Amino acid sequence: MPQNEHEPIAVLERKVLAKNDEVAARNRARLAEHGTVALNLMGAPGSGKTRLLEATLDRLKGRPAVSIIEGDPQTDNDARRIARHRAPVVQLVTSGACHLEAPQVAEALERLPLSPGGLLVIENVGNLVCPSSFDLGETVRAVCVSVTEGDDKPEKYPAMFRKAGVLVITKTDLLPHVEFDLDKVTAHARALNPDVRIFATSATSGQGLVAWCAWLGALADSARREEA
Amino acid sequence: MPQNEHEPIAVLERKVLAKNDEVAARNRARLAEHGTVALNLMGAPGSGKTRLLEATLDRLKGRPAVSIIEGDPQTDNDARRIARHRAPVVQLVTSGACHLEAPQVAEALERLPLSPGGLLVIENVGNLVCPSSFDLGETVRAVCVSVTEGDDKPEKYPAMFRKAGVLVITKTDLLPHVEFDLDKVTAHARALNPDVRIFATSATSGQGLVAWCAWLGALADSARREEA
Repeated sequence: MPQNEHEPIAVLERKVLAKNDEVAARNRARLAEHGTVALNLMGAPGSGKTRLLEATLDRLKGRPAVSIIEGDPQTDNDARRIARHRAPVVQLVTSGACHLEAPQVAEALERLPLSPGGLLVIENVGNLVCPSSFDLGETVRAVCVSVTEGDDKPEKYPAMFRKAGVLVITKTDLLPHVEFDLDKVTAHARALNPDVRIFATSATSGQGLVAWCAWLGALADSARREEA
Repeated sequence: MPQNEHEPIAVLERKVLAKNDEVAARNRARLAEHGTVALNLMGAPGSGKTRLLEATLDRLKGRPAVSIIEGDPQTDNDARRIARHRAPVVQLVTSGACHLEAPQVAEALERLPLSPGGLLVIENVGNLVCPSSFDLGETVRAVCVSVTEGDDKPEKYPAMFRKAGVLVITKTDLLPHVEFDLDKVTAHARALNPDVRIFATSATSGQGLVAWCAWLGALADSARREEA
């Protein structure tokens, strides 16, 4: 992009993060007002975030009600996939940026139904690094790791796993075909965050989805109770 | 990290990129002086970059000679894996940063053997977004996509694929177990870069490695000829 030579682009990083945190706090307050919990769903490109969501929507069948925000550098492919499962969805296209920020989520919230005991899932841009620095106003962070990615991801990308309340291991149907040590991943994830909840799932075989959906239901209920 | 309140962190983005490009040009000149070609190997976390490199080293058996730079947010796991295959390797730990920059590569070059007709492989941080903005001084960029990641990656992360001279599809041994349309990926990658070379490979079955290694050999030879 051509820039005026006398106008360098200056990014005051701390200021950007402070502004983000301010808006994230407003998002959080707004979600609490509505009695809605929000999940910031992160993971590498191709870790199965959207596929997990599709399978989750099919199982929850509207209980709790789920609204979805999709974040991608380009295309509205994922929003189209989600819409087929009859969930209200807003696509945020970051135009190449590597993570979502709170003001984008604030804008999406204007357009989505939020209900007491409801669940908002924010599917972040596929990236194991940058999204971990940006609070979106979520209740909980979840990170997906597919068994095909290798069992060294928590070790290599610790910032992401330290802040995640939930680790969803995906594509377990492929375990017979890959080298992946579930115990190793679990141990490394727990070393970074002793309280992390871990689900081993497959959207293809259905493994682990009952437990995962039950946990989401309980999470949504907890917000309703707080609101009541 | 606690910061002095009177010293906000200011990142002058254009200045950083200009500085990076300056050092990248010096890296490029230095590599050309040595008659060494450099491959900037990128891809999502878990796309199989290190595994591809291990299989490549085993097949090339020192012809051409390969030196390797490993980039990761944390750990020297990958450098240890590579060292087992008897290649000289330097690990760059980015301490959480999402991409490599040219000055880090310049520092690694001080420590690596560079020979006429040799090949330097720079394995970037696992990330389909940020590394594409930073020239490292490479001869060619390659991007890995595993068949388990889904066939929508070029569409969703176009900046990465537009600048890549080579697309290496990895883990083809898993094709019978996943939905992945090879023709779709190929068509989308070619739409972004009509000249892209495409290899479909599996480090497990060995598929495609002969063609891939032959291409690397020819690439290294071309630099030797230019130098002569």
